[in-house]
Amino acid sequence: MSSEYGTKLKVSVFGESHGSAIGVVINGLPAGYKIETDELMKLMDRRRPGANNLVTPRKERDVPVFLSGLKDSVTCGSPLCAMIENHDAHSSDYSALLDTPRPSHADYTAAVAFKGHADMRGGGHFSGRLTAPLCIAGGIAMQILAHHGIYIGAHISSIGSIDDVAFPTVGLTREILVSAGKKGFPTLDDSRGSSMRSEIESAASDNDSIGGVIECAAIGVPVGLGEPMFDGVENRLSSALFGIPAVKGVEFGAGFKSAKMRGSQHNDAFLIESDRITTETNNHGGVLGGITSGMPILLRVAIKPTPSIGKEQRTISLSRFESTTLSISGRHDPCIAIRAVPCVEAVVATVILDLLLEGTHNGNL
Amino acid sequence: MSSEYGTKLKVSVFGESHGSAIGVVINGLPAGYKIETDELMKLMDRRRPGANNLVTPRKERDVPVFLSGLKDSVTCGSPLCAMIENHDAHSSDYSALLDTPRPSHADYTAAVAFKGHADMRGGGHFSGRLTAPLCIAGGIAMQILAHHGIYIGAHISSIGSIDDVAFPTVGLTREILVSAGKKGFPTLDDSRGSSMRSEIESAASDNDSIGGVIECAAIGVPVGLGEPMFDGVENRLSSALFGIPAVKGVEFGAGFKSAKMRGSQHNDAFLIESDRITTETNNHGGVLGGITSGMPILLRVAIKPTPSIGKEQRTISLSRFESTTLSISGRHDPCIAIRAVPCVEAVVATVILDLLLEGTHNGNL
Amino acid sequence: MSSEYGTKLKVSVFGESHGSAIGVVINGLPAGYKIETDELMKLMDRRRPGANNLVTPRKERDVPVFLSGLKDSVTCGSPLCAMIENHDAHSSDYSALLDTPRPSHADYTAAVAFKGHADMRGGGHFSGRLTAPLCIAGGIAMQILAHHGIYIGAHISSIGSIDDVAFPTVGLTREILVSAGKKGFPTLDDSRGSSMRSEIESAASDNDSIGGVIECAAIGVPVGLGEPMFDGVENRLSSALFGIPAVKGVEFGAGFKSAKMRGSQHNDAFLIESDRITTETNNHGGVLGGITSGMPILLRVAIKPTPSIGKEQRTISLSRFESTTLSISGRHDPCIAIRAVPCVEAVVATVILDLLLEGTHNGNL
Amino acid sequence: MSSEYGTKLKVSVFGESHGSAIGVVINGLPAGYKIETDELMKLMDRRRPGANNLVTPRKERDVPVFLSGLKDSVTCGSPLCAMIENHDAHSSDYSALLDTPRPSHADYTAAVAFKGHADMRGGGHFSGRLTAPLCIAGGIAMQILAHHGIYIGAHISSIGSIDDVAFPTVGLTREILVSAGKKGFPTLDDSRGSSMRSEIESAASDNDSIGGVIECAAIGVPVGLGEPMFDGVENRLSSALFGIPAVKGVEFGAGFKSAKMRGSQHNDAFLIESDRITTETNNHGGVLGGITSGMPILLRVAIKPTPSIGKEQRTISLSRFESTTLSISGRHDPCIAIRAVPCVEAVVATVILDLLLEGTHNGNL
Repeated sequence: MSSEYGTKLKVSVFGESHGSAIGVVINGLPAGYKIETDELMKLMDRRRPGANNLVTPRKERDVPVFLSGLKDSVTCGSPLCAMIENHDAHSSDYSALLDTPRPSHADYTAAVAFKGHADMRGGGHFSGRLTAPLCIAGGIAMQILAHHGIYIGAHISSIGSIDDVAFPTVGLTREILVSAGKKGFPTLDDSRGSSMRSEIESAASDNDSIGGVIECAAIGVPVGLGEPMFDGVENRLSSALFGIPAVKGVEFGAGFKSAKMRGSQHNDAFLIESDRITTETNNHGGVLGGITSGMPILLRVAIKPTPSIGKEQRTISLSRFESTTLSISGRHDPCIAIRAVPCVEAVVATVILDLLLEGTHNGNL
Repeated sequence: MSSEYGTKLKVSVFGESHGSAIGVVINGLPAGYKIETDELMKLMDRRRPGANNLVTPRKERDVPVFLSGLKDSVTCGSPLCAMIENHDAHSSDYSALLDTPRPSHADYTAAVAFKGHADMRGGGHFSGRLTAPLCIAGGIAMQILAHHGIYIGAHISSIGSIDDVAFPTVGLTREILVSAGKKGFPTLDDSRGSSMRSEIESAASDNDSIGGVIECAAIGVPVGLGEPMFDGVENRLSSALFGIPAVKGVEFGAGFKSAKMRGSQHNDAFLIESDRITTETNNHGGVLGGITSGMPILLRVAIKPTPSIGKEQRTISLSRFESTTLSISGRHDPCIAIRAVPCVEAVVATVILDLLLEGTHNGNL
Repeated sequence: MSSEYGTKLKVSVFGESHGSAIGVVINGLPAGYKIETDELMKLMDRRRPGANNLVTPRKERDVPVFLSGLKDSVTCGSPLCAMIENHDAHSSDYSALLDTPRPSHADYTAAVAFKGHADMRGGGHFSGRLTAPLCIAGGIAMQILAHHGIYIGAHISSIGSIDDVAFPTVGLTREILVSAGKKGFPTLDDSRGSSMRSEIESAASDNDSIGGVIECAAIGVPVGLGEPMFDGVENRLSSALFGIPAVKGVEFGAGFKSAKMRGSQHNDAFLIESDRITTETNNHGGVLGGITSGMPILLRVAIKPTPSIGKEQRTISLSRFESTTLSISGRHDPCIAIRAVPCVEAVVATVILDLLLEGTHNGNL
Repeated sequence: MSSEYGTKLKVSVFGESHGSAIGVVINGLPAGYKIETDELMKLMDRRRPGANNLVTPRKERDVPVFLSGLKDSVTCGSPLCAMIENHDAHSSDYSALLDTPRPSHADYTAAVAFKGHADMRGGGHFSGRLTAPLCIAGGIAMQILAHHGIYIGAHISSIGSIDDVAFPTVGLTREILVSAGKKGFPTLDDSRGSSMRSEIESAASDNDSIGGVIECAAIGVPVGLGEPMFDGVENRLSSALFGIPAVKGVEFGAGFKSAKMRGSQHNDAFLIESDRITTETNNHGGVLGGITSGMPILLRVAIKPTPSIGKEQRTISLSRFESTTLSISGRHDPCIAIRAVPCVEAVVATVILDLLLEGTHNGNL
């Protein structure tokens, strides 16, 4: 029953979109790692609202305040708590919506689950704003992982009908991994990024929104992490990734495409390359039997179109128990997939750090 | 670190494919429910090896022996343990493979994780055979859920390039849900089922295998179950579903297709229908903000092609650390998706029973 | 791996004694309960440093700032985060101690566990100061439990050789339960309280400290909560209670005394009293087979003497790896048992609320 | 909600006293350890019923059958399941008791929790018989721990008014640790053991029973295992130990005695002894701040007198809702503390192996 994930490394997120603050408590961070705030802010800024015309104009600098867990910027092993104060909350935007649940938002299900007491202003605890604390956790995890040669990166794989190129199966370097994150629009191929931009602007100009797919990979992950069946790498990653609002699908390696393949196409032949065991292709996405193979962990995440749209929609009045319509004004991203890119990286980073902390099955024996 | 899932209802699977027995321990089963063995065996038989020419000829009756948790066939509230003895294990089939990891199997990753001590005969604990105890748990959960008006069913959604029709968005009845499970080939549309059969036979005759997608739905689930962020219905279902060997993707509602949609297409308008709140479409798959909406829970699972194929494949010798080839004889399903259909139902059933036992956020307060 | 406890209600504590803030995140709080700050501050004030001459003169008002989880003072179902800023930290007091671990403190074990990176100023995350956030959680839990007729109270049962009277076996009312907590010195019998005071002052004047035992009870707890074996009421309570620094023993009902009793003395005869099933005595402490009996939950907790004493003690220098001595100045309670009384109540309250939220074995089925 | 404990090593117990079998599933066992059955049976035999005239005459050889987790007697890393078939169950002994809950047994609380469906023949899942599977887990853990220089032993510390000598603070060797376990009556001092025997025989001849205290210690445990607050060594050990039926108190080091001590007496001075950091005394019981200090882990457990006694007792009829009396015949230990000695060792062994598998806070980083 908790807004928390992880086994040895536990990430617990708190806050409501229009409450006084949002934040994260991380238990199990290894001690002795210096956290660079500048580096962390680079990740935070990629997720931050108000950055450009494709995302919500809500203005939040989103600078984390560290309450515990760091001494002189170095992790001291006790739980790290970081909070971000909410400043630019316009709750009046939501007052009319309390009685009329917004389609494909959590308004109705939360009203039932929390007996009418949920603070749903701006989406409350269900808001995409809660991914800011996730990015704090992820940014810290990435800095620690980098000390162990593990790097994570993601890019927009598709928006509507436009596809980006995929990460290369062979020769996926750190440079390629992080390249999209440094751009104004996070694709590998800039021209396809431009087309996606147009697609999003077109949806926005129609008072509409659009969905997208994010591809994420991690390199440098050692062989042998994870466990069979229900405690494997895919179980943990998928469970955590569905914690990002709007995620509706998660696939690894060839994913749903594998359903169309024959075994002879899909199987990844083992090779020996410069004294390491690798595979020729990576349809398995770096995980076999729940355990890392040493190949890049490769996954894709489907993000639904932003449910908040300006177009008129049919809904109901909960109090009058009758049909009605609503049009959502407020401030919304026409395509949340863009800002979700660093969030996917963040979640993947925390799960991999968790796996690394546990080590292989026999631990240190 | 465990072959276990669940919160209030915990399902823990044990056994190796060629060990003396496989089985399951279920903690948290509600007391006072009569378990009908005949009903349970119907589910078990759908998963059972040796049933027809499309699945492995390994002969196992797979009749569970109950060691605890039942008194006069009624659940008594203490942990239920059921085991299935292994009879028809041909371990000699695997002796040559110990040094040469089979591509896209867990042989290599298990060798590293368990320091060479894993019992990998027949896939060991990683074998699809471990889904038999899952079906025991799922079959029991389904019988309990039926007392509360909750029903679960699944069918093959696609094999290779052939698609079955989808479950209907509106009017998904218990009859439709369970119809595919009663057929020799589990599709909604029989002619498409015939085409899929041909596709599988064609792969088999090429000493090859093929993947597939399974669609599963649950009806009658109350509104308000689950929690936001990391403890929601999608998190739990996906995490458990990736525990079925060969699953490489999980999506809910419109899933990956939602990435191609606009918000105005994807959003599910709220309606009032005979005194109930429903939605006009079900692109959200019955879950909004991690919490059940009362609409059918709808999901699809991608199953990779059986990695064991007769065709020659490239691999390595671990002892000689050099490239080699292997051809897998033994007994294998050309398409494991078929036998995975009841397993998906089983996992979904246990997760929903777990959610039901927890109740809504405030519990019984 | 976490400073967290609980199943459906999860209490996660963060902070270091001399960091910028300490606090708590509570997941799973039921929605719709108004939290009265005045009531909460009464509990906080009983634990607060600086209240009288028997406790550390460190001055902290310890007023919680709520960052999330409340809307208009009412729980909204999302994680509640409350923090307390640290103001009166005198870190210079500790600078000399870094190399010389204080006997019976966590300095040495933390140095090893956290590889020298633990922030041990004022005891860091191991400090008794971390019980302030526990009291926030407990105070909130108590307010919710009161709505369900469940009340919790505790008193000093012994200090050194002086014993207080025990809670009565029969007729333990809410008034008796909370009476000690309203006094300057938390005993049931005031004259024994005076003797304890003298005992503590005598230890203090010797630059020494003294231990104590706390008795705690809860009334109004329904029958049937908890599970057999490892998930019972005693397992959960003891595990959480050992989280209070300085606790070295936990016993229920007759506890260690039961080891000296015969079955015929120890067994609690069942009675029917005004339409309720009760027991004549309460040697079982309200828990049989891990499950609540409806009788008061009754437990005692042993608190060791404050390890920080003014007397010279033998220790070692970690850097020089040789014997040395130290005398601790700083500000310390001569008897931490006194301030631990509300903390024991707090922990018991959260565990009981957790049990109540889960309900009996079959949940809401 | 489970009869399970542990973090990385998970021990899950199943079975009812008069069901067809009892057993255990252990997840997370490290791979590659040979398990000696003879060695394991020595521990099992110490717990076994029917061994002498002080324990129940129920005859069960209690030989575990391994269903999974071992290949050629070597742990293979997958979940180990072992079961013991029940043979000598006399259920008729209990038929009269179903309506009249036995005082200080779980009959009444289980009837409420499991809505009348619990199988309470012989105590059902609440029976002391369920400690047999615990001993399987513990015996395996002890064999693995011995490879890492960690040894565990226990003895009866007191029965009624008779005390055994305590484990020595300094110089606690493996020989001393295991000495009591090799004797017919598990004390360090044989003459005190004789007196205890007389005390038990005297209770038995009065159709009564008597309680006892068990002292247990572990040597060779490395420094730095465990975590502060709620995930420390004491939290985990106490939580698991209360899973042994009849345990009513757990204390570490000086335990409840520490409440009577001054800090100057209680504090354990740090010393350097042959290049190791030790403490002069061990009032802390090997744990400081939740983390192991490298000194022996030392704890005591209070065991209540067997609630099943031949003397007439007052109870109620649940069906008639009126007072009545009962006299328990059947077969019962006059002092369950004796057979609980190996069970305490077993639980301590599994918890320490769990801690060892996790390693120190930073894991393998």
